[in-house]
Amino acid sequence: MTVNKSAHSFDKARLEALLNRRFFYAPAFEIYGGVAGLYDYGPPGSALQANIIAEWRRHFIVEEHMLELDTTIMTPAPVFETSGHVARFADWMVKDTKTGDVLRADHLVGGVLEARLAGDKEARGQSATLAKEDDKKKKKKVKTTAVKLEDDVVKEYENILAQLDNYSGPELGELCRKYNITNPDTGNEVGEPQQFNLMFASSIGPTGQHPGFLRPETAQGHFLNFSRLLEFNNGRVPFASAHIGKSFRNEISPRAGLLRVREFTMAEIEHYVDPEDKKHDRFREVRDVKLALLDRHVQSAGRTDITHMTVGDAVDKGVIANETLGYFLARVQMFLLKIGIDPARLRFRQHMANEMAHYATDCWDAEIQNSYGWTECVGCADRAAYDLTVHSAKTGHPLVVRQALKEPIVTEKLVPEFNKKTFGKTFARDTGLLQKFIGDMTEEELTKLQGELAQGQTIVSVDGREFTITSDHLTIECKMFKQSIREFTPNVIEPSFGLGRILYILLEHSFWCREQDIERGILSLPPVIAPTKVLIVPLSAREEFDPLVREVSLKLRKAGVYSRVDDSNTSIGKRYARNDELGTPFGLTLDFASVAKRTMTLRERDTTGQLIGDIDKVIEVVTELVQGSMTWSEATKILPAYDGSFRHER
Amino acid sequence: MTVNKSAHSFDKARLEALLNRRFFYAPAFEIYGGVAGLYDYGPPGSALQANIIAEWRRHFIVEEHMLELDTTIMTPAPVFETSGHVARFADWMVKDTKTGDVLRADHLVGGVLEARLAGDKEARGQSATLAKEDDKKKKKKVKTTAVKLEDDVVKEYENILAQLDNYSGPELGELCRKYNITNPDTGNEVGEPQQFNLMFASSIGPTGQHPGFLRPETAQGHFLNFSRLLEFNNGRVPFASAHIGKSFRNEISPRAGLLRVREFTMAEIEHYVDPEDKKHDRFREVRDVKLALLDRHVQSAGRTDITHMTVGDAVDKGVIANETLGYFLARVQMFLLKIGIDPARLRFRQHMANEMAHYATDCWDAEIQNSYGWTECVGCADRAAYDLTVHSAKTGHPLVVRQALKEPIVTEKLVPEFNKKTFGKTFARDTGLLQKFIGDMTEEELTKLQGELAQGQTIVSVDGREFTITSDHLTIECKMFKQSIREFTPNVIEPSFGLGRILYILLEHSFWCREQDIERGILSLPPVIAPTKVLIVPLSAREEFDPLVREVSLKLRKAGVYSRVDDSNTSIGKRYARNDELGTPFGLTLDFASVAKRTMTLRERDTTGQLIGDIDKVIEVVTELVQGSMTWSEATKILPAYDGSFRHER
Repeated sequence: MTVNKSAHSFDKARLEALLNRRFFYAPAFEIYGGVAGLYDYGPPGSALQANIIAEWRRHFIVEEHMLELDTTIMTPAPVFETSGHVARFADWMVKDTKTGDVLRADHLVGGVLEARLAGDKEARGQSATLAKEDDKKKKKKVKTTAVKLEDDVVKEYENILAQLDNYSGPELGELCRKYNITNPDTGNEVGEPQQFNLMFASSIGPTGQHPGFLRPETAQGHFLNFSRLLEFNNGRVPFASAHIGKSFRNEISPRAGLLRVREFTMAEIEHYVDPEDKKHDRFREVRDVKLALLDRHVQSAGRTDITHMTVGDAVDKGVIANETLGYFLARVQMFLLKIGIDPARLRFRQHMANEMAHYATDCWDAEIQNSYGWTECVGCADRAAYDLTVHSAKTGHPLVVRQALKEPIVTEKLVPEFNKKTFGKTFARDTGLLQKFIGDMTEEELTKLQGELAQGQTIVSVDGREFTITSDHLTIECKMFKQSIREFTPNVIEPSFGLGRILYILLEHSFWCREQDIERGILSLPPVIAPTKVLIVPLSAREEFDPLVREVSLKLRKAGVYSRVDDSNTSIGKRYARNDELGTPFGLTLDFASVAKRTMTLRERDTTGQLIGDIDKVIEVVTELVQGSMTWSEATKILPAYDGSFRHER
Repeated sequence: MTVNKSAHSFDKARLEALLNRRFFYAPAFEIYGGVAGLYDYGPPGSALQANIIAEWRRHFIVEEHMLELDTTIMTPAPVFETSGHVARFADWMVKDTKTGDVLRADHLVGGVLEARLAGDKEARGQSATLAKEDDKKKKKKVKTTAVKLEDDVVKEYENILAQLDNYSGPELGELCRKYNITNPDTGNEVGEPQQFNLMFASSIGPTGQHPGFLRPETAQGHFLNFSRLLEFNNGRVPFASAHIGKSFRNEISPRAGLLRVREFTMAEIEHYVDPEDKKHDRFREVRDVKLALLDRHVQSAGRTDITHMTVGDAVDKGVIANETLGYFLARVQMFLLKIGIDPARLRFRQHMANEMAHYATDCWDAEIQNSYGWTECVGCADRAAYDLTVHSAKTGHPLVVRQALKEPIVTEKLVPEFNKKTFGKTFARDTGLLQKFIGDMTEEELTKLQGELAQGQTIVSVDGREFTITSDHLTIECKMFKQSIREFTPNVIEPSFGLGRILYILLEHSFWCREQDIERGILSLPPVIAPTKVLIVPLSAREEFDPLVREVSLKLRKAGVYSRVDDSNTSIGKRYARNDELGTPFGLTLDFASVAKRTMTLRERDTTGQLIGDIDKVIEVVTELVQGSMTWSEATKILPAYDGSFRHER
């Protein structure tokens, strides 16, 4: 059976209706009117999220022996003062000068220019469609009117949009004035952009004296524990810590469903690496993985065209800065494809200079295309030594690696050798003062002193007093020093995943309708992350099926396969259709033949193909299908096809 | 080999040193000086927590087909105003009248009386030990001085301590005055107890106009989604929702490590049940489970003695209110024992009247004894219809079950029957007004009207105007009504788990030292929750062992067994001892015999017994041991014992 998944174009309204009806997720506090940017996951959404997390753990933590952490969300203010978040983790907002409504400055500029370009296209008689859908998420939705623009204005606008993330607050204010950008809802002018800090504030303890913030990322929790982690790893780098947990950002005006929310589950990896050696010893395993890259030079030139390149080539050519960063980009892509992201709609976009977070020196976002445009789902930043350095400086607690050198480093150095007898006798109470003064001398000063003493004597002036020193008091000698420990602050490569965004886009990429039935949707989620793996469908809720249902459930549970039973009072076809909407990949039907002959049919969600066989054999096959060690087409060679219908009576 | 786990008495300092050294957990923000009540979990702690959660999911959610949720932490204030948390989720605190230091009132009273009793015992020459250790967690630690008390004062104190949770704020204030209780740190008097709300406050959105709180429990997230959950369950009760996630309580002065923290992971079940039928259809499966019970009557009498009883008996005798509550108490106990809690140190304590949370009508805590006393780890509350009712009343959104009645309820009712023709003709424009007025009449008014019409006619006065109505216009008839739908607000039984408390106490219960080596600790965690299941120990890091290490790792991973390799440069004995501290139940050693003859030894943590066999056979056995389908004593019958030492050279 062939499946035509693109028979109908993607219908977002239908998907949203399905997700709401089947309670994948819903606005939180809905019966209280809801709060923008806060969502609750229902049973299928929770299960999908739990399965994505479990696969993430296997793919990253288990596979690479990362050190998992679970750190605190409520954070005392000094931590984020040091990390720079109190001063700089902010978005630019503008206020409507008359109504006081608050808008995000970059979304306003983007939305208005976007709408003008669309109006221009309309006026020119071109279709104003997906050409620039790319960054819809970054724009405020504005109504379009057909007004033709000058050709060079069009170019200016396009150039601005390609670099929208690159503007500072004052620059965004300037753009508003230059291009007459007003609040599209009211037509009123907007004020100067002001920074709004995105962290939720609170205070800790009963006296209210300890200000705190909800963390906007898990990263600081890793860095503050660096010494303990390093010790746990026997003092060796490279290694990585990983943390899956909630973070909070008080977004100015969240829209776009799960794509921009105020509370979200992140999965973050902090990989600690020697700054002088960013090679990765498993790099050869990913060398040939092909990536779709959009580097910063292309964007700065106002373009958005993609280059397809292997990770190996990209690192060799310097497009990706080093092996470790390249390794993680490849591993991120492998993870996303494994859970069902469409490879044709995945790209890695490099941040432009001004766009980068304050702590990053380089950053590539895995962006995934969806109905809102291209959305950042995984940020891969090189945070260099920024965080460890600032926390160490602030607390006085060294956050460094001490490494025994294989070859000690030998250096030569001039050293003053005092003739204790003569020196002490000559300078009496000034001995200590003079010894300290000479001991503090630079290499250069010592060289000069050495030269002068070679002449016999010299005069040294300390605190306004002069002392005559001879070669009898002191000689300057060249000595060898051996350094066997190297101390350094590691650099940090950070892949940071927004799991809610990935979950939502996965639902979009998985959604389709059968050619013959546009009313019912299907979610083609891979078995590894599907909320329920197998649906058990007894012909009816009659008692005679109970022992078989129990037997099959139990055997599946023992095989580690999560199943559910649907014995509701409706046709088998309807029950399957309902579970197509939940993304359940396989169905097992028990009918009177099962009772009589111990056979069972197995149905596949996407093709609706059905096979039949002995109950235990079918359980064996479906277990392999769920575990991914067998494909459906292989299964069709093991079990005969079933094309009968189910007999409702003996 | 026999194991004597109680050869040394429990040494808390050693356990704490181990947990800190091996980074099970540590104070959060330690390099910033830490914040009381906030902790970070390191790699073994995170893994232990993840495994407890996974087992909890299997034991409750999967086993009972509960509907899992993941709801929002940041909650708008109106939700907690309705739920009663803004007004009543508070502890009583007192301030030192001179220094302003804040103390929790009940902890202060408890601590001081406790210390006086201990001083009395000392003065009487009795040992002042564990007699009243029970509730140490509730007391402020106070230094003891040997002062003898009157016999009746001793009795009064003991009586107060047994009911410490039962006092209101003003009563605690009275106790302070009556018994001269002052701040033990300064000797100063304390002020009147004041309520301190335990929720962390914040505000949502850029304008600061929307106050919010961090949830102190996940429960409200379940209740607000009740309609969606009920629909997901096809409208049927009973069913349960479940949620594992973080909650926050701004404790006044947290102590006692992980037992009283400001941010913690909870697992909560809300089981929705017909208030008229709290039977449970799996009750017979747990009927014979024996529980240690401490009911409210015993406590109110100032005693703490335990009754051992089966769940069946306890429900039959009315000690436990109903089957559903009893079912969950039994299931909670089964879970706690499965993950390794000592059954001799588990009891179920019923709340006293004043102690109960504002939403509860009955509550039993699973309390587990540990070095801090008896600690509440799971609360099983009957919240009745409280929450659903208040949210429904506030929002106007019905949170009810509508159930088709098997036998419709038939009722009789008086109904006005208008003679359309004559009525309309007589009353013209006033027809509607009059019909509404009569339609709104109570049963009583209709009976009166019926009587008057039987006399021929009557006068009805509406809005100050009078109308004459005759039996020609209207008759009042008795009609039968059939009600086939019953509508009710379900009751909620809530088992609520504090996972951090369970995790910590589990570590205490698992900790011991070998008779011959008090320096090294062992954590005898059951395989199901041990952070690492199997340690692979190659004789050395030499390359010739690499292929075998890879092979064994891979085969274990395929069998679903999580292993780690320790190829560090130290003796095999030291490596095993290190992993005894991490609770790793099994070890596999690869030596030159493995390379030559493909044999491998298997070591068990608690007995240190070793077996030997073919590599694949050993993998098979260890997989069964980890899965719990084989015991160690069974394994010793399958594989021969190994009592050699490991050859370091060929």
